[in-house]
Amino acid sequence: MNFAGGRGVNKLSVADYVFRFLADRGATVVFVLTGNGSMYVNDAIAREPRLDYVCARNEAAAPIMASAFAKVSGKIGVVSVTSGPGATNAVPGLAEAWVESSPVVIISGQSPIGELPRGSGDHALRTFGTAGVDVVPAVRAFTKYASTVTDPATIRYEIEKAYHLAVSGRPGPVWLDIPIDVQSAHVDAESLVGFSPKSRLDPVSSEDIRAFESILQSAERPLIVAGQGVRQSGALVELEAVVRDWNVPVALSRLGQDIFPRSMELNLGQIGRRGAPYSKSLLLNADVIIAVGCRLSVQLAGHDLEHFSSDAKVVMIDIDSAEIEKFGERIALPIVADAKDFLRSVLSDLSPTSSPSWEDWRTRCKNLKSTGKISAAQRESNPMDLYFFMTQLDRVSGPQNIFITDAGSNYYVGGQVYNFEHGQREVTSGTFAAMGTSLPLSIGAAVASPEKQILAVTGDGSLELNIQELKTISYYALNVKVFVINNGGYVSMRNWQDSFFEGRRIGSDDETGAEGLDFRAVAQAFGLDYMLLDSAESVVEDLSSLISNPGPMFIEVLCDTEQKIVQPFVETEISS
Amino acid sequence: MNFAGGRGVNKLSVADYVFRFLADRGATVVFVLTGNGSMYVNDAIAREPRLDYVCARNEAAAPIMASAFAKVSGKIGVVSVTSGPGATNAVPGLAEAWVESSPVVIISGQSPIGELPRGSGDHALRTFGTAGVDVVPAVRAFTKYASTVTDPATIRYEIEKAYHLAVSGRPGPVWLDIPIDVQSAHVDAESLVGFSPKSRLDPVSSEDIRAFESILQSAERPLIVAGQGVRQSGALVELEAVVRDWNVPVALSRLGQDIFPRSMELNLGQIGRRGAPYSKSLLLNADVIIAVGCRLSVQLAGHDLEHFSSDAKVVMIDIDSAEIEKFGERIALPIVADAKDFLRSVLSDLSPTSSPSWEDWRTRCKNLKSTGKISAAQRESNPMDLYFFMTQLDRVSGPQNIFITDAGSNYYVGGQVYNFEHGQREVTSGTFAAMGTSLPLSIGAAVASPEKQILAVTGDGSLELNIQELKTISYYALNVKVFVINNGGYVSMRNWQDSFFEGRRIGSDDETGAEGLDFRAVAQAFGLDYMLLDSAESVVEDLSSLISNPGPMFIEVLCDTEQKIVQPFVETEISS
Repeated sequence: MNFAGGRGVNKLSVADYVFRFLADRGATVVFVLTGNGSMYVNDAIAREPRLDYVCARNEAAAPIMASAFAKVSGKIGVVSVTSGPGATNAVPGLAEAWVESSPVVIISGQSPIGELPRGSGDHALRTFGTAGVDVVPAVRAFTKYASTVTDPATIRYEIEKAYHLAVSGRPGPVWLDIPIDVQSAHVDAESLVGFSPKSRLDPVSSEDIRAFESILQSAERPLIVAGQGVRQSGALVELEAVVRDWNVPVALSRLGQDIFPRSMELNLGQIGRRGAPYSKSLLLNADVIIAVGCRLSVQLAGHDLEHFSSDAKVVMIDIDSAEIEKFGERIALPIVADAKDFLRSVLSDLSPTSSPSWEDWRTRCKNLKSTGKISAAQRESNPMDLYFFMTQLDRVSGPQNIFITDAGSNYYVGGQVYNFEHGQREVTSGTFAAMGTSLPLSIGAAVASPEKQILAVTGDGSLELNIQELKTISYYALNVKVFVINNGGYVSMRNWQDSFFEGRRIGSDDETGAEGLDFRAVAQAFGLDYMLLDSAESVVEDLSSLISNPGPMFIEVLCDTEQKIVQPFVETEISS
Repeated sequence: MNFAGGRGVNKLSVADYVFRFLADRGATVVFVLTGNGSMYVNDAIAREPRLDYVCARNEAAAPIMASAFAKVSGKIGVVSVTSGPGATNAVPGLAEAWVESSPVVIISGQSPIGELPRGSGDHALRTFGTAGVDVVPAVRAFTKYASTVTDPATIRYEIEKAYHLAVSGRPGPVWLDIPIDVQSAHVDAESLVGFSPKSRLDPVSSEDIRAFESILQSAERPLIVAGQGVRQSGALVELEAVVRDWNVPVALSRLGQDIFPRSMELNLGQIGRRGAPYSKSLLLNADVIIAVGCRLSVQLAGHDLEHFSSDAKVVMIDIDSAEIEKFGERIALPIVADAKDFLRSVLSDLSPTSSPSWEDWRTRCKNLKSTGKISAAQRESNPMDLYFFMTQLDRVSGPQNIFITDAGSNYYVGGQVYNFEHGQREVTSGTFAAMGTSLPLSIGAAVASPEKQILAVTGDGSLELNIQELKTISYYALNVKVFVINNGGYVSMRNWQDSFFEGRRIGSDDETGAEGLDFRAVAQAFGLDYMLLDSAESVVEDLSSLISNPGPMFIEVLCDTEQKIVQPFVETEISS
C-alpha cells in the first residue's frame, strides 16, 4: 500500500482507478458535490478526460439527477459525495433511485482508515473521524451492494462487483465508501483481482413458453400490462411486435406509460387508481392478464390483485422474483426472466393465433379508449384547471420532448393527459411520487440529452424541496422549462384533510404553514428568466412562444386552488 | 384491533396515544411535514391541545430543527413525517441529531400492514404500498431505537421504550414507523403493557473517586476539558464549582464552547486544531487531563490523543463507554458515568487540594489566554475579513442571544472569536460541521426561545442546502437574523483544492459550478427584509441598528473571497 506521492509508471490511485473503470464502461458524467472528505475522488474526476461533471447544490438531489440521466441516456449514473453529512444527505436521492430501479454508482468519501467508527451494538461509536459516520449500514437497505473499501488492493473487485450489480438483473443503485487514505493510495492495476459474476439468469424455458401459449389460446379477453422493465431491457421493439402480431390490447403502468404513443390503436394508456378513466372496467373484464416488466403496483392492481377479475389468469414476467412471489398462488404462470429474453422467445417460438372473441374485445377496448376523455381538460376557465393546462402543454410540445412531473396534482394529471407522440418521454418519480423531484430529474434528463426540450411541471409545494437546483439549471443553461403550478400549495393534502378530517388542516394552507413564495423573485434569485401564465385564452400562444426559445425558463402558472383529481376507479359498462 | 371509527369511551387511536404520551412528558412542539401516509398522525397533532406544530419545507430539515429545539429548551424534540420519501428525506437530519446526541423522537407514516414491503435478502421487495419503503433497516444505523409498530396493542411499550432511550444515557434520536391502519386503530389505554427500563448506571464508585483524587494530587499542570455532555447532564453549576474550588484551568470542546463565558478567568476557551491559537501548547503541557462530558474528538485531541503529551495521565468521564474504549490503554482512569453524578461525587467526597506548581501553571495559562488574539479580528478592511465581521457581531450581541453557525469558514471563525458572555449560547453542527444546518438550527432555537435573539451566520454555499427554510423563518416571523457571508461560495473548498491539487478546482468557484445567487432577490422570494453589509467602517452601527429590531431579517455580508482560517496548531512557548 502506497499513499499519495510515489506514483509509479504503472500505478495509479484508487480514485483514478474507479473513474477510469467507469469511463471504460461508458460513464460520461458525474453528479458531484465536492468536499474535503472526497478530495482525491474529486480530483480524479477533474482529471479523467472522458468524464464531465455537474455540480449539484445539495447531495440529496445528486442521485435523482443520476437516476434520470441513466433513464434517458441508457448509461450508468455516477454520483460523488463527501464523507459524513455529504453521504447522509444523499440518502433521499438514493432511496428514489432504489425504488425507480435506476443503475447508479455512488462514491462517498470517508474518514481515514484509522478514524473509521469502530465497535458494534452498544459499543459502537456514533462518529470518530472529522465529520465521519459509518454510512454503509444505513445505505445497505437501499442498494444492491454497499461496501467500505478498506484495502486498496480490493478496488478492482469492489468496483467490478458494484458496477455489475447496478446494471444487471433488476437495475439499482450501489455504493462504495472510500476512506480518504484509500482514495489516494496507489495500486498496480495489472495485479489487481477482479470480480466474477454468477452466471446470468437461465434462458426462458420452452415449458414456460408453451404454458404461455396455452393460456393465451384459452383467453377470450387478453390484456398485456407493460411497465418500465420493457424499456430497461431494451425490448420496446419486441413488445410492439408481439402486440402487433397477436393483436392484443396493451395497457401501461405509471412508469411505463411513455413506452408507446397513445395514438397507437391498441394502446389503452396508463391504467390504475388514478389512470385512464376506464381503468377499472378494463382490468375487471380482461380474462388473461400478461404483465411484462411491470411490478403490478398497488395503485395499478391492488395489493392482492383485487383490481383484476378474480377469475382472470395472470401471467407475470419479471426479472425480480420477489415481485412475482408477493402475489403467491394468484399468479397462474410466473416467469422470472428479462423482458427482452421472454419477448424474443415468444416471437421466435410461437405463431400468432387468435380467437373469434378477441375481435369483439378489441372493439370494446377501442370504444373504452375513445370515451375516456376527461372533461376538465377542455374547461377553458381562469384560474386554469390543471387538466386544461397540461393538455395544452402536451398539445404544443414537440417531438422528442421530455416531460417531467412532480408529486401531487400534476403527477396524476400528467399520468392522465399526456400522449407521448413522436418519441416523447416522461421521467418522473413514478414509484414514490416524491415531492421535489422535478428539478433534479429535469437536470439529469437535460444533461443526458442536451438537445431535447425538457418540459418540467412542479407544484408550488414540491418546488421548495429542491429549489436550490434552480441555480444548477440556470448555471448550466439547461434546456429546461420549469412550470410551477401556483395553486396555493399542497392542494393534494388539503383534499385529503378536507375529506377525512372535517377540514382540520395542518401544514396545507396559508394559515397552517404552506404560504407560498414570490415566484418572480425566485426566478431572479436563481438566475432564470420569468414568465407568468394566467390566461386560459392565450395559453397555447404563450406556450408556443416560450417553447420556441431554447434554454431555461421559470414559468409560474396560475391554477385553480380547489383542483380536483379525476379518480375514476369505478366500473363502467363497456360497450361493444 | 379496531380500525378507524368505533371509538369507545375509554379508547383512543394509536396516533392520539403517542402524542398524548409525548405531551405528558413535556413535549410542546412537533416539527412536521404532512402527508397522506401520516394522515392520522397529523390529525392527532392538530387535536392535542398541548402541542404546537411547525411546518418544515423539506423533511431533511425537521430533525435538525428538533435537535436545536431540544438543545435550547431541554425538552424532547419531536418530528412527524410521512411514509416513503417523507421518511427517507428525513435521514440527513436524523444523522445530524444522532452525532449531536440530541433526544429526538421521529414518527413516520407507513403503508398499511397489508402493504408493507415483504421478504428479505434477494427476496426482499423494494417497495410495495403506494410510496412505501421499509425505512427502519436504514434508520437503525442512526438511532438508539427504531421499530415498525405492527400491533396497536404494543404502542405503549414502543413509545415508552423509544422515549426512554432517547433521553437516557447518551441522548439520541429514536424512530417509530407506524402503518396508517395502526395509526387509526383504537386501543384501550388502560390495558396496554408498558416498557420497564433496565436499571440506571451504577453510581460512581468510591474507588473511582479516590483514584481520581490521587491522580489529581499527583498533577503539576492539570487541565479539565469539558464538552456538551456537561450541559446535557445539567451539571454546569457543579462543573463551575469544581473549577472554582480546585482552581483548575478548563478548556472546552467545539460543542461545549458556550458552557462558560470567556471572561471567566480559568476558562481557556475552545481548543483543538482550529480552536484557540494556543491549543497545541496548552494540551502538550498539561500533565493530567480530565475530560468530562466530552468525547475528545479527533479535531481536539487527535485520533490517538496525539495532541496530548504522551506522558499525560488522562481521566475520561463519559456516559458512552464506546467513547472511552476507543482510546484503549491510553486512558489512565476511565469512568463510565453521567457527568453530573461524577461532579457531585467529587464535590461531596473530596476536599480541594492544590500543589505549589499549580499556581505557576495557572499563570502560564492566563498568559496564553491573553496572548491568544487573532490579528485578523482587528483588520478593518473591505471586503471584510470574516474574523473582523464575526468579532463585531459578537461585540454588538446582547445577553441571552443565541449564535448559530454553519459549515465552512464561519464555523471555524465562530469557534475562535465568540465569547459567550451573559448567558449567550451557540447551536451548531458541532460534530459534522454539516453544510446547510444554520437555517433549521435557527428555527429550532427560535421556536424553543421565541424571546431570544438568534444570530445565525451561514455561507453562500451552505445557504443553498436548506434555503427553503427561509420561508419557515418568515412565515412564523421568528426572531432570527440570517447573516449570509458572500465570499464567492465554497471558500473552504477552494482553499484545499489550491493547496493539495495545484489549483485544480472542481465545484468550488464560479467557473466550476459554485456561482452564487442574487441574495436581494432571495430575501424577496422567501418574504424576508433584506440588508447589505459591505462596510467595515459602519458595520458596528449597522449591526446595532438591525439587532435592535425584533423579527427576522436577511443580511448579506460582503466578505473577502480569499478568506484564510487561522490554523494555529503549532506549539508555541508558554511564558510563565
